[in-house]
Amino acid sequence: MASVLIREAKEGDCGNILRLIRELAEYEKLSDQVKISEEALRADGFGENPFYHCLVAEILPVPGEPQGPCVVGYGLYYFIYSTWKGRNIYLEDIYVKPEYRGQGIGSKIIKKVAEVALDKGRSQFRLAVLDWNKGAMDLYKALGAQDLTEAEGWHCFRFEGEAMRELAGK
Amino acid sequence: MASVLIREAKEGDCGNILRLIRELAEYEKLSDQVKISEEALRADGFGENPFYHCLVAEILPVPGEPQGPCVVGYGLYYFIYSTWKGRNIYLEDIYVKPEYRGQGIGSKIIKKVAEVALDKGRSQFRLAVLDWNKGAMDLYKALGAQDLTEAEGWHCFRFEGEAMRELAGK
Repeated sequence: MASVLIREAKEGDCGNILRLIRELAEYEKLSDQVKISEEALRADGFGENPFYHCLVAEILPVPGEPQGPCVVGYGLYYFIYSTWKGRNIYLEDIYVKPEYRGQGIGSKIIKKVAEVALDKGRSQFRLAVLDWNKGAMDLYKALGAQDLTEAEGWHCFRFEGEAMRELAGK
Repeated sequence: MASVLIREAKEGDCGNILRLIRELAEYEKLSDQVKISEEALRADGFGENPFYHCLVAEILPVPGEPQGPCVVGYGLYYFIYSTWKGRNIYLEDIYVKPEYRGQGIGSKIIKKVAEVALDKGRSQFRLAVLDWNKGAMDLYKALGAQDLTEAEGWHCFRFEGEAMRELAGK
């Protein structure tokens, strides 16, 4: 089995990250919602005050073997603010290409996010999962996450588009 | 009926905001989870790179009438990053003191958040609601929000405490 490195993304990874963002949205059956561009990802993640941070899972080349795709997964996160606990982390996306699943790459990304959070003195990180994605839900629970929708009844709401413009009277 | 002003919070509002954060957590039956201090709220929201922004609902004094509490509600938000739509807003908390409900103050806070989002070129804002809080759920839906847990199946997950330390091997 090839070995995998979980590392911080560089600006040059944005093309690969965008391809993975699109694959994830397709997997989630929500790909019509992806409007982001590679340029936006570069500008937003690699300026002076980055709006997000990203980890990538990279397959290290094995001497003598043909080299497949290098970046096979990613975890994109940013800092949020809990009025109970202060600054915290939200893992917006986590994805591993289907042909590289079952090797613990997702767990490695999650572990790295936990390390980043603890290194920065943060006490938690959050994420959202689709309820039909049993594999992901089971993995996160096995790693110690709590399903707050199940345990406490939290629902995710979103305002957007026409409804938002009407609200703002614009 | 007294008139209400929705305005950006100032550093001097942090004591009132903390009292309202505690009231909201009590209402949500989760008040044991509040660990934040007024000092942290001041430092985190009013430095050079604030980690959050806050709106407060202030009752304007009426000449000749005794003045009750001034700040009777708040909406605390921050910027998040959608890999579909780019930079967006998350409304972490919204709260109006029970004795001031039914006057449209919550709707005014939501409308102001929509205005802020549109002014900054953002296409959506998100929030989370407890499923037993029917009044809040009905209000957000009436204002045009979509319940994404109901519509798409999103569940909120959280890693924290011992589970997070184990994950990070610390």
